[in-house]
This record gives sequence, C-alpha cells and structure tokens, in this order.
Amino acid sequence: MADSKIAIIGTGLIGASVGLNLMARKDRQYEVVGIDRSRQNARAAKEMGAVDRTVRYLDEGVEGASMIVLAVPASAAEELLAAMEPHVSPGTIITDTCSTKSSFMRKAEEVFGNNVSVIGGHPMAGSERSGPSAASVDLFKGAAWAITPSAVARESSVRVVIGLIESAGAVPIYIDPAEHDEIVAAVSHVPLLLSVALFKLVRDSACWEDAEQLAGPGFRDMTRLVMGDPEMATGIVSTNRPAILSWLRRYQGELDTIIEALEISDEETERLAEGIELPKDGEESAGATADALIGSLFDRARLERFVFDDRIVGRQVPKDGAETPRAGDVMAQMFIGAYLYGRLKEQLNRGEQREKEAALRRGEPPKR
Amino acid sequence: MADSKIAIIGTGLIGASVGLNLMARKDRQYEVVGIDRSRQNARAAKEMGAVDRTVRYLDEGVEGASMIVLAVPASAAEELLAAMEPHVSPGTIITDTCSTKSSFMRKAEEVFGNNVSVIGGHPMAGSERSGPSAASVDLFKGAAWAITPSAVARESSVRVVIGLIESAGAVPIYIDPAEHDEIVAAVSHVPLLLSVALFKLVRDSACWEDAEQLAGPGFRDMTRLVMGDPEMATGIVSTNRPAILSWLRRYQGELDTIIEALEISDEETERLAEGIELPKDGEESAGATADALIGSLFDRARLERFVFDDRIVGRQVPKDGAETPRAGDVMAQMFIGAYLYGRLKEQLNRGEQREKEAALRRGEPPKR
Repeated sequence: MADSKIAIIGTGLIGASVGLNLMARKDRQYEVVGIDRSRQNARAAKEMGAVDRTVRYLDEGVEGASMIVLAVPASAAEELLAAMEPHVSPGTIITDTCSTKSSFMRKAEEVFGNNVSVIGGHPMAGSERSGPSAASVDLFKGAAWAITPSAVARESSVRVVIGLIESAGAVPIYIDPAEHDEIVAAVSHVPLLLSVALFKLVRDSACWEDAEQLAGPGFRDMTRLVMGDPEMATGIVSTNRPAILSWLRRYQGELDTIIEALEISDEETERLAEGIELPKDGEESAGATADALIGSLFDRARLERFVFDDRIVGRQVPKDGAETPRAGDVMAQMFIGAYLYGRLKEQLNRGEQREKEAALRRGEPPKR
Repeated sequence: MADSKIAIIGTGLIGASVGLNLMARKDRQYEVVGIDRSRQNARAAKEMGAVDRTVRYLDEGVEGASMIVLAVPASAAEELLAAMEPHVSPGTIITDTCSTKSSFMRKAEEVFGNNVSVIGGHPMAGSERSGPSAASVDLFKGAAWAITPSAVARESSVRVVIGLIESAGAVPIYIDPAEHDEIVAAVSHVPLLLSVALFKLVRDSACWEDAEQLAGPGFRDMTRLVMGDPEMATGIVSTNRPAILSWLRRYQGELDTIIEALEISDEETERLAEGIELPKDGEESAGATADALIGSLFDRARLERFVFDDRIVGRQVPKDGAETPRAGDVMAQMFIGAYLYGRLKEQLNRGEQREKEAALRRGEPPKR
C-alpha cells in the first residue's frame, strides 16, 4: 500500500498532533503507525485518524520505519532508544519531541553512533490538557520548533525533519542542545515551577475559600501550567536540573530586589504615619525612591513585553511550508526545506558568533 | 430627558466597560456622564457609546448625580474623593473599582461620614490592554466583583450596586476591606510582581535573542500581566504593601523548598556520575526522595488546580441578573438584588465565622 512507514511512539497530545499533520498530507506515500504503552491512547489516536494503524510492541512498530518520532516524556525517551536499537535499520531518521535535548542527544549518539540520523526536536507548543483527545492538527501552527541534529545526521535527513515541522505550520529553530536546555529552563521549566509554587502557596493558605471566589484571569493564567502533564513535568526536572537551579536562584534575586524596595517604602510609610522623620521639603524620601524604582521596573518591563508580543504575532510560517509537497517517496515528499536549510545554517552561525562574543566578554580564550 | 444621572469618573478599560453595561439597560431613565482627565479617553468613550455625554470638570460631573462610579487607579481615587466632596449631594451612592479597598474605604468614610452611601467595589476582571478602546460590555461576564459597603451605607444603596454588578453579568462577593486586600495581594498583586520578575530575568539575560525565538504559550501566559496598566500596578503596590510583602516572603519560602529538593537530587546525580556513594540495593537515595517530593508536589497541585478550574467554569451568573429591570426611577430600576442581598449577608456571616475560627486558632481572644 505505502512506499514507507513513519512510526510515532507515544500517541498523547504531541504524538497524536504530529500524526494528524502527517495523515493530512495530500498524496502521502507513507503509512503512519502508532505505538503507545497505553492501549487506550493508541486506540483513541487511531479513532481520531492520527495514525493509520497501531501496533502493540515497540520492535514491530519501528522495524522497517523510514522515520521514527519519539513523542514521550524525556525520562522515558532515553530508555526507548536503547530498547529500539536492535530493530532500527541503518539510515533511519529518528526525531523526538522531548522538552530537554542534551541528555537525549548524548544517549542517542551513544546508542546509534553513525548508523542513523538522530535529529532532536522540541515543539514549543502544548496545552494544559494531555492525551490524544486534546490533540489538534493546529497545535503547532506558528510555534517555534527547536531542532538539534546530531553531528553525523545527514543533511537530507535534517531536511526531512524540517519538512515535517514546516508542514505542521511551525517554525524550525536550529540550536545547540546545551543552549536549548539553558533557554527552555528559562522560558518553560522555571515558569512551570513558579506556577506550581504560586498555586500551592494560595491553595494551602487559610484564606483559600475566599481566594477561590475572588481569583480572576490573572491568577488563572499564572497557574494554568500546573495543569500540564505531570510526567512531563517531572521528566523536565530530572533531565535539566542544573539549568533550572541556576535560573531559579537568579529569579529569587529578582524577587529580593522587589521585596527590598517594598520594605523601604513600607517602613517609611509607617514612620510617616507615626509622624516621625517627615522628609524636608524638596528632599526626596527613600519611600518615594523605592516607589519610583518599582514604577520604572514596571514601565520598562511593560514596554519590552509589548515589543516581544508584536514579534510573536508577527511570526509568520514560511510560505513554502504550505506548498503541496512534490510526489516521490516519503523522503522526497517531505523534501521541502532546501532554502530553509540554508537559513538555519545562518542561524547556527549567528549562534556560534554570539557564543564567541559572550565567551570573549567572559574573558575566555576563543575556542578552535 | 432622564430622571437621574450616573457619573463615571475615569473612562478607561473598566470605566468604559461599566458605561457600556449601563447604556445597554433597556428603558433606562438615567443618563450616563463620563469624566476623564484625558480628553482623548473621554471622547473615545463617548464615540463608542459608553456614556451619553462627557463633561470636562469634576464638579460639573458629580453635581446632581444619583450614583458616582470611580473607575481610576487606587492612588488617584482617594484624592478625587476629597475633591468631589463639596459637589456631592447627600444620599448619593458612591462606588469604585479600585484594586485595593481598605485605604479607599477609610478615606471615603473620613471624607463623607454619614452623608453618602459608599459601597466599595472591585471587579476581578481586566485585560492586558488598557483604555476605552479595550472596553467591552462582556468584560465582567462571570467575573467575581467584590463589594465592601461602609458601615453607614443604606441597604437600598447596596442593592443598587448589586443591581449594577448583576446587570454586568458579574457575581457580587461581600467581603471585609482588609480581608479583600489580603486576598487580592495573593491572587492578583503578587502574581503581577512574579510576572514582572520573570520577564525581567529572561529579557535582561544574555540569551534573550534565542529565548525570544523559543518562548511558547507558557512563557507568554506567565508574563502577560506585565502588559497591564502600569499606573494601576504602581497604585496597587503603594496601597497594599504589607499584604504583598507578606505573601512575597511566603512565596520565596515555597521556592526555597523546590530549590532545596533540586539541589539534593543534583548533587547526588553528580556523585553518581562520578561513581561515588552509589546507594545500596533497596536503600532509597536522597535524590530519589527529592524527585519523589517534586513529583508529588506536581501531582497534588495539578489535581487541586483542576478542581479549581471546574469551580470557575461552573460559576453561574444569578438568573435574576438577566431579568429586565422593572420601570421606575433609576434606583428602583436597579433594585433587583433583594434575595441576593440576603445571600450576601449569609456570606458575610460565614466570613465572620471563619475569621473567628482563624483568630481562635491564632490563640487570640474572641472579639465582641
């Protein structure tokens, strides 16, 4: 029936959404096979048309696959690499959707050496709902999708993964695994922990019964991440601890600054209320300075946040992402990233350039 | 033309949205007058039909008004109370939409004594956009709207404000001003500060250029509050410092717990990597315990957060909020909160009961 086979391991929110995009391709000459240790998830994915068929065992699923998409939590992905290795044929393309990349890429290179092209991937999209029932063909539209090809990955294979990403309407971002993990710790993992801490604080407080009544959209947004897949959450923490720790400590520093400013104003407010130490005319009070500090903090952050928002809204999916792929086997069919590949190379070079500059600023000798 | 007049002072996001709801009332026998120190805001509110007309000066605006709605930042509201006092006729209803209530109510009682009914209000709704252009007749639908009547406020006046709230599709919550400020510090003010701290941390970091590329919906939600009205933000901080400080310090405590757990696992991971101190079979390692701790933290928070979500979605607007008000003068016309008033009294009593219990737990002697 089909020239080739794509295996999706893990048919939850992300895996099933990838499947829906693969199944939606016109004139596709590949079949999509789903594997999930939860038979319920696998069945649901099949029923919603996210896969052509499901198989129960890993070996059966990956044997003869031209491409394998690992859409499972980071913790599980590494064990699966070793388990599938005997059944993966040389030249196969392996990609994943894990939230961390360094340890996955290390493990993948250790397991597969030069035999297969491992191209790590991380779509920066999700939902507080998990499982295939939450999957959508639009989940990745306009989202960034980090890719981390192994040193030995073939260019043609990288282009195939780029084709997959573009056809899902996402924007591929070429990045080094360590740099990726450092950044997602800041934009994804730490926000998740902050969200959990805020919800726990208020939920466990004596005034929860009233807080629950009064909580508005702000509190809901700031605690929405708590509803994400907990297995993914713990997977993140167990595979990206050092980066998360370093950002969390710096975050505590930001809070210290705010707290100190509030303490100054607060003490002074109390003293003024008691009629002590009224500032002389024209003399600026410490409290006023602290308020000004917080005011300017808000103003600057607000401006920059609007700039950021405009950039995101302005982020467009490359035109050729929409093109109907040309016929041929699955590889050729997804072979639509040619000019983009060049663009990504440039990104990589810019990245290296920035890294060089940063290293120099840190006073480190330039690397060869 | 109209039997009476309602003055909205401040025709920004909230004021104009209140206006749109007042203007939407069928057979209304009142006119809505808007005042804003920004003539542009006032003009915009008039053009979008949020007010019948605008006046330039406060005295002209409040003179002869049956109800005055103060929709300005907390910091500005208190000055306005004093400024309008000579022009407010006895029996007028004054309500506001400020984010903090204690200091506003104190000031209002000081300025007006027994002459007018001051019923503080705080709709728990908003948007990252500010100004009348962001206003909507639906802004308050399903939202909680805290009300804090002064001790001398007449029941009939309280019912009028309840009518205003219900006709906007919101749910009135009867609460003590100090309790309100304590709670909004947790569900609104601290989340805002956490949001600013997170955005500043990442924005000012060396990897912003890449972070901006990779940031997904999670980061956007967790920093969305940064785009709110900065004047409101600073107003909050200047009128609710002690409560904010106390919650922020407790929040840091929550982060400390998470950081400590991560540090334990991290150290152990490193030691294991170096082949040192491998835990004996069957003996649980400190790292495993820490991971389990974080895992259970996630699981519990997640469960509770879903429960919370269901409650919010389930929150229904009282049926009578939709009823067409009966004819008569503006007061009678908005006189639609009879049974609700009783319900709110119960809320208040429950609140007092909880407060008594809390005080007893703190070992304080019961108040008279």
